[in-house]
Amino acid sequence: MGGMTNALSFEQKLENYARLLVRVGVNLQPGGKLHLSAPVGAVELARLITREAYRAGAAEVDVRYVDEHLDRSRLTDGQDGAVAFVPEWFAEERLHKIADGYAFLTLTGNDPDLLGGVNAERIGVRSKALAIASRPVGQKMSAFAVNWSIGAMPVASWARKVFPGVPDGEAVARLWDAIFTVSRADEADPVAAWDAHLKQLARVRDHLNGRRYAALQFTGPGTDLTVGLADGHVWAGGAWAAQNGVVGVPNLPTDEVFTAPHRDRVDGVATATKPLIARGTTISGIRVRFEGGRVVEATSDTGQDVLTALLDTDEGARHLGEVALVPASAPVARTGHLYYDTLFDENAAIHLALGRAYDFNFERGKVRAEDGGNDSLIHVDWMIGSAQVDVDGVRADGEREPVMRGGEWAF
Amino acid sequence: MGGMTNALSFEQKLENYARLLVRVGVNLQPGGKLHLSAPVGAVELARLITREAYRAGAAEVDVRYVDEHLDRSRLTDGQDGAVAFVPEWFAEERLHKIADGYAFLTLTGNDPDLLGGVNAERIGVRSKALAIASRPVGQKMSAFAVNWSIGAMPVASWARKVFPGVPDGEAVARLWDAIFTVSRADEADPVAAWDAHLKQLARVRDHLNGRRYAALQFTGPGTDLTVGLADGHVWAGGAWAAQNGVVGVPNLPTDEVFTAPHRDRVDGVATATKPLIARGTTISGIRVRFEGGRVVEATSDTGQDVLTALLDTDEGARHLGEVALVPASAPVARTGHLYYDTLFDENAAIHLALGRAYDFNFERGKVRAEDGGNDSLIHVDWMIGSAQVDVDGVRADGEREPVMRGGEWAF
Repeated sequence: MGGMTNALSFEQKLENYARLLVRVGVNLQPGGKLHLSAPVGAVELARLITREAYRAGAAEVDVRYVDEHLDRSRLTDGQDGAVAFVPEWFAEERLHKIADGYAFLTLTGNDPDLLGGVNAERIGVRSKALAIASRPVGQKMSAFAVNWSIGAMPVASWARKVFPGVPDGEAVARLWDAIFTVSRADEADPVAAWDAHLKQLARVRDHLNGRRYAALQFTGPGTDLTVGLADGHVWAGGAWAAQNGVVGVPNLPTDEVFTAPHRDRVDGVATATKPLIARGTTISGIRVRFEGGRVVEATSDTGQDVLTALLDTDEGARHLGEVALVPASAPVARTGHLYYDTLFDENAAIHLALGRAYDFNFERGKVRAEDGGNDSLIHVDWMIGSAQVDVDGVRADGEREPVMRGGEWAF
Repeated sequence: MGGMTNALSFEQKLENYARLLVRVGVNLQPGGKLHLSAPVGAVELARLITREAYRAGAAEVDVRYVDEHLDRSRLTDGQDGAVAFVPEWFAEERLHKIADGYAFLTLTGNDPDLLGGVNAERIGVRSKALAIASRPVGQKMSAFAVNWSIGAMPVASWARKVFPGVPDGEAVARLWDAIFTVSRADEADPVAAWDAHLKQLARVRDHLNGRRYAALQFTGPGTDLTVGLADGHVWAGGAWAAQNGVVGVPNLPTDEVFTAPHRDRVDGVATATKPLIARGTTISGIRVRFEGGRVVEATSDTGQDVLTALLDTDEGARHLGEVALVPASAPVARTGHLYYDTLFDENAAIHLALGRAYDFNFERGKVRAEDGGNDSLIHVDWMIGSAQVDVDGVRADGEREPVMRGGEWAF
């Protein structure tokens, strides 16, 4: 019995996806400028996005193809000096572009095992050097100085990881199918579908902002965790207005609403429900214990050294910067895959982020220690949600209200 | 009976080619920095070059993948504003890199028919905008502020043009074979082969510089041409020392030695021995008559309108800016192909260039009208050499000496 779901051809879905990224994601305006960062394997999609952007009236589309193998080569073939080297003017071009009002569109699509076998110390040195050099740009981006969005490209190395044992061509096709589904690119009118979805996310976000919870309580298998929320926290998610007034969607797909925890008010234990992929390493079976907001114990079944290295990046790496709620029935979760990519996996389950908080998650528009805001060089999401997890909202007076039951919204 | 010539595997030849570009082309120094510009289809070669550069001790390799289809999209899908737009800070990053001592390596590999059917006025607007924006960088490059080199990548669209009617895969393989051969990448010790070749080019160049000819006399089928040389002309070719003292080879392959003609002292007729490819058009059967340095008559079998338009660009377009000597037995000529790419075609035959002269072809390091230097917006090479062409050197006192006989060196 043929269904209607996949009535569109691959080419139509790909064009839909390009249109969504340009029209909904960055919402490029006539006369606007676009910086597109894409994996070097994303040539076809990058060309479609470029065409769509010019047809939307773009004055400029600047495409940067990214080849992650070159990053690996630096770590495996380069001298120590190469590992640590970042040019002084590294951030300048992007700062120029931000000042010029460019929109930034990034296509993720990475080999989750890219850095397998590479010296962990070198990876750490490189990550830190890049984090420091990128900070001025990151600050502008997290303040939404300009509109930006992140989409995806299913390169073979990634598809292979999501669908192990499947021939490359088929794995890529299946990953495309999943991306089209969770991004609603397989709908006849994907822009209208996104309008409806964004309205629902806005309803949830506005409800949570209205309740002003002091804390959230997470209960599930291996998890009994109280996450205090920052003073003056703001729930965000779905569509965003950048400082230039343009409303876009920073992540395609997106099914999360999220805010800033209080850096000193997190207590209890949490067990990850999905592996964390960080620094080219799969860290599975994470179990963490918090005291007074700080990670005092963290173990994992694999990738323990990388987990420890992450936590030792700086003091803020042991505190939380984000708590995000996602229903267990979200499209990404329904596909049932582990994507080894934050853009997807974080939209499949409730998650926490170690490290830096976002300015926009605060009423004052700034991460401040006195409000419980956390700062760090890192921001790493890991998943603790499932259909077995309940979430309560705890009011300032201690009163509890159901927020999620069995992984679904309870209001 | 198997020969020894192709004893190396494709992978070995590709690695040899990467090594040649890094060690001979830009001659990257330990601790050096490399900017690599490559067609987006050159991923495998770009990764090999990057690995080779890091192994040579590079502190930094920054690879920019270039996708010419995006340039076409701007012209066909963009508004007028997009066609004319170049960011104000366009040249800044490269100027930063030049100041930081980066070496620049460029891989050519273009679809000769890329802009077929595109509005010619739009192409003109775009070319001019880019030419103006690139000028500060171009000046530094032509003064060899840093060492740079150009190699090639046989993308399918180009290979298809060189080997029409041949399936893509085979056309690319055949173009690779040709590139390996003319670049000596198919030799067991290609670096040693280049050392020997550069010594030979230096011998020819030094001989010609020592003779101080007032003019060259070209004789062959349909050609009887006297090309006066500029006052204080300098023969160049082969290896070059950049201002930073590093000696590299700007073109791989390279088989030419060349200097500046005197713009007012060219007389006689010349008949092209190969088609000229310009502005997406094949101009075949060119016959030109010079009087007092100026083209007074120019006809061709095909592309006459483009030839006329080229000559009418400006006054300097009817005068010569370069005369280059290449033996008829040069490797590119021996392959017997027309490459539709100057890097190759100009190394197949004696050629002349209409238009702008090079500063480095003058003792004073500058093109000056009083020395007979020519200026123009164009610089277009066209081939007049073959195994039937003789070249005499004419001394100031009128004495003649053989320079080439039957297309080969005669000294």
